[in-house]
Amino acid sequence: MAQQSNILKYKHLGIYTQNENVVYMHEDCHVCVSEGFEALTRIRVSNLNISIVASLNVINSDMLLPDEIGLSDSAAEKLNVSPNETLYVSHLEPIESLSHVRAKIYNQKLDYNAYKEIITDIVQGDYSNIHLSAFITACAGGRMDINEISDLTKAMIASGKQLNWNKEIVVDKHCIGGLPGNRTTPLIVAIVAAYGLTMPKTSSRAITSPAGTADTMEVLTNVTLSSEEIKNVVENEGGCIVWGGTAQLSPADDVLIKIEKALDIDSEGQLIASVLSKKAAAGSTHVIIDIPVGETAKVRSTEMAQQLKEHLETVGKAVGLKVKVVITDGTQPVGRGIGPTLEAIDILKVLKNEADAPKDLLERALFLAGELLELSGKVEKGKGYKTAQKVLQSGKAYKKFIAICKAQGRFSKPVLAPYKIEIRAENSGILERIDNRKIAKLAKLSGAPQSKSAGISLNVHLNDKIEKNQLLYTLYAESIGELNYAMDYKNNHNDIITII
Amino acid sequence: MAQQSNILKYKHLGIYTQNENVVYMHEDCHVCVSEGFEALTRIRVSNLNISIVASLNVINSDMLLPDEIGLSDSAAEKLNVSPNETLYVSHLEPIESLSHVRAKIYNQKLDYNAYKEIITDIVQGDYSNIHLSAFITACAGGRMDINEISDLTKAMIASGKQLNWNKEIVVDKHCIGGLPGNRTTPLIVAIVAAYGLTMPKTSSRAITSPAGTADTMEVLTNVTLSSEEIKNVVENEGGCIVWGGTAQLSPADDVLIKIEKALDIDSEGQLIASVLSKKAAAGSTHVIIDIPVGETAKVRSTEMAQQLKEHLETVGKAVGLKVKVVITDGTQPVGRGIGPTLEAIDILKVLKNEADAPKDLLERALFLAGELLELSGKVEKGKGYKTAQKVLQSGKAYKKFIAICKAQGRFSKPVLAPYKIEIRAENSGILERIDNRKIAKLAKLSGAPQSKSAGISLNVHLNDKIEKNQLLYTLYAESIGELNYAMDYKNNHNDIITII
Repeated sequence: MAQQSNILKYKHLGIYTQNENVVYMHEDCHVCVSEGFEALTRIRVSNLNISIVASLNVINSDMLLPDEIGLSDSAAEKLNVSPNETLYVSHLEPIESLSHVRAKIYNQKLDYNAYKEIITDIVQGDYSNIHLSAFITACAGGRMDINEISDLTKAMIASGKQLNWNKEIVVDKHCIGGLPGNRTTPLIVAIVAAYGLTMPKTSSRAITSPAGTADTMEVLTNVTLSSEEIKNVVENEGGCIVWGGTAQLSPADDVLIKIEKALDIDSEGQLIASVLSKKAAAGSTHVIIDIPVGETAKVRSTEMAQQLKEHLETVGKAVGLKVKVVITDGTQPVGRGIGPTLEAIDILKVLKNEADAPKDLLERALFLAGELLELSGKVEKGKGYKTAQKVLQSGKAYKKFIAICKAQGRFSKPVLAPYKIEIRAENSGILERIDNRKIAKLAKLSGAPQSKSAGISLNVHLNDKIEKNQLLYTLYAESIGELNYAMDYKNNHNDIITII
Repeated sequence: MAQQSNILKYKHLGIYTQNENVVYMHEDCHVCVSEGFEALTRIRVSNLNISIVASLNVINSDMLLPDEIGLSDSAAEKLNVSPNETLYVSHLEPIESLSHVRAKIYNQKLDYNAYKEIITDIVQGDYSNIHLSAFITACAGGRMDINEISDLTKAMIASGKQLNWNKEIVVDKHCIGGLPGNRTTPLIVAIVAAYGLTMPKTSSRAITSPAGTADTMEVLTNVTLSSEEIKNVVENEGGCIVWGGTAQLSPADDVLIKIEKALDIDSEGQLIASVLSKKAAAGSTHVIIDIPVGETAKVRSTEMAQQLKEHLETVGKAVGLKVKVVITDGTQPVGRGIGPTLEAIDILKVLKNEADAPKDLLERALFLAGELLELSGKVEKGKGYKTAQKVLQSGKAYKKFIAICKAQGRFSKPVLAPYKIEIRAENSGILERIDNRKIAKLAKLSGAPQSKSAGISLNVHLNDKIEKNQLLYTLYAESIGELNYAMDYKNNHNDIITII
């Protein structure tokens, strides 16, 4: 009977809070009063089908009546609720897995079952940001040993969907990022799929960068496909390049990554579990991982990269993946374009073997595609690069790429942005340094990735001899305002490109 | 000029989110669009006088117009904003001190300056819950050495107001809690102030317990006094017992404690810094700290208590406090009452030397008052208890207590709750165990501390020989509903009191 009184009528409020579930109830609401709910209490909200956990905000205006209940947009979406629908609220049962988080805070080792319980509760949305941050922090700073990282990875794989392609060999690649313009993925998929391997690639959108692979590919084709559609594309073409957001692979990772961004840390254990759980859940068997090393890249020293390599390969083995890590140069952006459309232009130039295709992007793609061909066992050791080059030069990779785009729904040619400013050298000298982070920021301020054609086209490389007034890069934007906004930043930072 | 366009008009929404600052802007708001603000972005909101940091929620209904801005109640209060007032919003500058938090996550030692910068930013409200939780977690699990704890304590003292009583000796006491009904503070203040020492006591309200000292004292007198009023009371009477919430002593502590509660951890370093920074900021010189030890108390073993004792005394010395820690029995509740009014009744019985005063509360108060008299150096070692007893038995402590209450604004007699149920033993035997946590929860479900007269009056102690049907305790409530709610819990938990 007590349950019956916890009924409230849903009212749409239109408050968007990203993924955070917020529930709004009036201060005179009988449920608040009788249950002793207070603002920020985490409570369970259910309809007949689904149940979520949300933080309470208490309304003391006429925005809600006492018998009404509101939800943040994401909470309303998760409950799939309709106006005036009846919702039930109740106290949140204690989250048992937090005892494992506390054990980890107190330096204890956790086993697979403990990680499994934690990850399950995180995926259910039971952890608040406070809990998530404590879990991330307790696992950072070298506090997980290699067995724990393997167990966490396994727990994350098990927490979501797992794809099965009914193939003995399914290849994949990953880059431990930080290099603007480094858009090798579409090239590698085109090459290895044209060669005959299966490479169902799911990619992310930009989180803090000017473009993710999914943003760039969206210039050329559709990237938001259902599981069924993805399956068809891969069956017909041997590869795809789609957005991974709908696939629900390792869903805990999406939650944890947001907290790591807010803290601006990359816990090694979480990074490894994040990368490998996504790959394993996507049904991959052979994975090349590229770690660019540079002062302003994500990994800053060869020693760190070397350790990460060993741990990635060990954990990969533990979860049944054949992983090879390659350490590459991460001292400057790759290709010319930084931003979705400009990167898409680079990709097409490489695929079409055009004379002015960016050579660094081309070489990097051939190297990684070659490594992947060798790792798969289908190409003899030492012959990967040559094989990849042959596939590209023959035009087969371009043909495959267009076929994949069409299978994904369309192939559209990239169109340049309407506004641009050319940035020229103020003095002559040698190009000493390009700050990856600052040039990425500049591209973002010009509107990328939301404005697809915004961004930067870079004309110079490290160690180039630069003449005064030589074109360094062109800034593109879809509005004058954005162009000015980027120029403000450029004018206030004279260390984006350093010439001495 | 860019600044000028970031102007919005304040509209009252009436959304209460406790201390969390939330700002509401419409999705079509020109500032959101031009500044690239997204939901949950932390942004700076200012009027002409004050500036705060708040998390953005984006409105897509007619709750706000595009040129309007809303605030959560606490944010509106901090800005002291009026309807239609102009507010300015801007990007949050990077929080530099987070680099120290990251260093701590990566196991580095921090120095005084690092802790100072962190605490300053926390007090300004610049840290989100994610940042706060990472800081707490990185400092927990024995990751702070004794120098770091001292530095953190000093930083917390410096972050708020510091009181100065112009007295050579200012005494104080603290209990590292967890024992229901353990309301010795008002008794100790009355005794030592009657003896002639200065004891300006600021106490907390309950956070998760059925009563804090401030809640209990509010039954008898006013506890929300201005700094000026507190000063007057202490000058005239030598002591006070007020709520510390308005004093702004060690304000970082109030923020950090909420996160620790959410994580349900007591980091030793944070605990020591919390207790000692409050005492030092309150202008105390000599402090007795009581650590009750018991299976269901906050500190569960004598070894833990012993280590905590050493660390408290060492850090106390480092920050210029004379600290003595006493380890006491924490196996059962103290006194009869659990809940503000019922505890107030116990206190008055002890002060008036009534025959049925709870003896355990009386003895504990005399012991601690005696220790404090000796620590102050005003009473010879070994004579503290006797001296305290004399002051109490003479009626001087009662007289002093009434005088303090009147100086604080009123003295009111406690009045029992209108509804009660007597809980009797279902079997005979020996009283084996009282679960401190569960009996506290029961008192809270009956309405304490919001309903002042709600709670429990306990008639039995550990090892008592119990007859079947003997009165164990009486549950009090201010409504039938609350009484039933508490009884539901009681009927579902047969291990609140164990008789075998």
